[in-house]
Amino acid sequence: MSKFLSTDPYKGTRDFYPEDMAIERYIFDTWAKTAESFGYERYDASILEPSELYKSKGAENEEMVNEQTYTFIDRGDREVTLRPEMTPTVARMVAAKRRELSFPVRWYSIPNLFRYERPQRGRLREHWQLNCDMFGVDDVSADIEMIQLAYTLLTDFGATPDMFSIHVNSRVLMNTWYTKTLALTPENARAMTRLVDRRNKVSAEDFKTLLGEIVSDPDTVITGLDAESPTALGESSLDALITGLEALGIINVRFDASIARGFDYYTGVVFEIFDTSPENNRSMIGGGRYDNLTELFTEEHVSGIGFGMGDVIMRDFLETHSLLPADVRVTAPTLTIIPMDADKNLNALTIADTFRKNGVRVATDISDRKLGKKIGAASEAGVSYILVVGADEIASGKFTLKNLSDSTEHTGTITDLLNIIS
Amino acid sequence: MSKFLSTDPYKGTRDFYPEDMAIERYIFDTWAKTAESFGYERYDASILEPSELYKSKGAENEEMVNEQTYTFIDRGDREVTLRPEMTPTVARMVAAKRRELSFPVRWYSIPNLFRYERPQRGRLREHWQLNCDMFGVDDVSADIEMIQLAYTLLTDFGATPDMFSIHVNSRVLMNTWYTKTLALTPENARAMTRLVDRRNKVSAEDFKTLLGEIVSDPDTVITGLDAESPTALGESSLDALITGLEALGIINVRFDASIARGFDYYTGVVFEIFDTSPENNRSMIGGGRYDNLTELFTEEHVSGIGFGMGDVIMRDFLETHSLLPADVRVTAPTLTIIPMDADKNLNALTIADTFRKNGVRVATDISDRKLGKKIGAASEAGVSYILVVGADEIASGKFTLKNLSDSTEHTGTITDLLNIIS
Repeated sequence: MSKFLSTDPYKGTRDFYPEDMAIERYIFDTWAKTAESFGYERYDASILEPSELYKSKGAENEEMVNEQTYTFIDRGDREVTLRPEMTPTVARMVAAKRRELSFPVRWYSIPNLFRYERPQRGRLREHWQLNCDMFGVDDVSADIEMIQLAYTLLTDFGATPDMFSIHVNSRVLMNTWYTKTLALTPENARAMTRLVDRRNKVSAEDFKTLLGEIVSDPDTVITGLDAESPTALGESSLDALITGLEALGIINVRFDASIARGFDYYTGVVFEIFDTSPENNRSMIGGGRYDNLTELFTEEHVSGIGFGMGDVIMRDFLETHSLLPADVRVTAPTLTIIPMDADKNLNALTIADTFRKNGVRVATDISDRKLGKKIGAASEAGVSYILVVGADEIASGKFTLKNLSDSTEHTGTITDLLNIIS
Repeated sequence: MSKFLSTDPYKGTRDFYPEDMAIERYIFDTWAKTAESFGYERYDASILEPSELYKSKGAENEEMVNEQTYTFIDRGDREVTLRPEMTPTVARMVAAKRRELSFPVRWYSIPNLFRYERPQRGRLREHWQLNCDMFGVDDVSADIEMIQLAYTLLTDFGATPDMFSIHVNSRVLMNTWYTKTLALTPENARAMTRLVDRRNKVSAEDFKTLLGEIVSDPDTVITGLDAESPTALGESSLDALITGLEALGIINVRFDASIARGFDYYTGVVFEIFDTSPENNRSMIGGGRYDNLTELFTEEHVSGIGFGMGDVIMRDFLETHSLLPADVRVTAPTLTIIPMDADKNLNALTIADTFRKNGVRVATDISDRKLGKKIGAASEAGVSYILVVGADEIASGKFTLKNLSDSTEHTGTITDLLNIIS
């Protein structure tokens, strides 16, 4: 065993060095700006939640919590879970202040979420996720706005509608179809929902075989799943949603009876948005209406609808479609002040302070390297300007500002140079 | 037992509703802006870290980890800790890329940190903390810059130097004094460091009694702890630090032999900044030089210096000194579009989209309340303008924009009104 500790982060998590952090912040800032343009206000909560928040819907959820989340017992004998999703938390917060809040409540958050599973591409043990939710509106216009917001979250990064595809379905339709038309037992209906949710992940042949274990005539069901209109399956409320979106200029939307969504709590519209590129053809955004979630906390009914989109998949999407701005990784200061030797370090700090007070992002190279190395390092880091401080400069009060991108130089007092840089 | 779940957050943690989140974001944004003005770049990492990261310095640390942190065993039999502080993480990240990084490295982060203790004022189980660190500079100018940055982090919120006091000390001085002058054993020297760190938390009498268990002449030691100059204790390197800060205009700084800092890893300058108000007279910022921390990971020496300041204490400071801007809690959109009834909801969404595309933060009230209630709710939420959409407005193409602060109204096409609002 080495006497040194490993420098690796914990399995399935990421270190964000400044270059990666800059991309992460660009994504978060763009998310925040778009959500706020729709009147959504930001909230947050702790990553620690009582485990019962996720277990309450029966034994199946209990199994999920025990096997797929980070759950432990604290010293007060409370069972605690690192939040695997944000929806139960936001429902808890809305239920707590239901008497004081002014509905419709529009909220967003960018929480980190945890799941305990084998790390794989696009699915880590810790990831960040934008969550947008609206509470208190039953009308279809809330469903329309939610999908419009999801659409705008992509176009505000420069995405065009051909890069993604919006698929909508309805839990009402699925329930009617499964329990009435196909006359499935409640257990089989749940099994069917789960199987349909995994349809993209298994071969067509396997899907048909697995389907045959639930229904007697899998071919007819597959025809239904491939139907192009909800009316073919006896449901028309989705028409208003699709027509409404088209009226807002959103035409890359289609009915898709294969959209199921894993969570049990959805009650109405469900939707997913897929990247259309062949190399990244994954679901990027998923959400839906969950009208009963505050019922865990109160008898009062507060309807909700929302969606989530993850940071890992978002970055993959932006990179796949070349949508990341070229300068997004540059986090270096504008100016580096370089003292000739260590006894000019304090002079460098003083001059830096003057530039900083005039709004310039400025660092000093107070390392003990040679001058040439210091200039090289500033250039490598992406700094725009350097200013060297030596005995002559201090004596004369005249300094030289060098522009590293075009190698031009200006000599003058600090006041003169401030005018050039700003 | 109630059939309903509690809506309380997990013990010792906070829910951030939009009003509180707005204050939190104001604090984080100001921190980030100031740190970046000094050329610091942002990084982050997971809250999950291998427990060995905190245990490596011996049995005492092991006890601290087991008793004061959230630590559990994952299913891969790894011991995992929710990070109680950021310094070991940043040392790990710097050590991992020590060959590629360009020193001096200046980094900052705003992580959430966890500790397992009884919640009390200003000390929760989860809090956020600004961490600023510089690596690769041994010179005193790095110590000067660090304290200058801490100072500016307070003045950039509008604080004046009379509101806080900077106390500096040196581990070198303490080590010389404890082990040479007082000839303490290593164990007693550590006990002395811990006791001095707690000096403000016990009575003068108790302090003297406890001190008497470690040294033979507690009165002389107390005189030393109260010395106004480090030279009285045989140390002069702090003079350069204090003189340098004064040259930068920072005069609310003084030597304080009582500043110890709890962590074992400090090796040079240590400092704390106290709120001077009688009702909030606490340490707000603490930091120091830790030249050996990367030695956990590599034989290569990388010196570091840094500090942390917490969000809870920062907010207390801003509130105590009335430094929070009056409008910081307003997170409402600029404009709310109000449809007269539900069949105008889609029109409202369309009009909202036009304003939004022109940079206005706009929400729609698509709830099923009556018109008067909708107007009242917009006013209560702090919205600046409302625009009502009814059949007449749609037919004529003329809408009325009402300014809620001065009750003025303007009627015109959407294009006309766009000009007024922006």
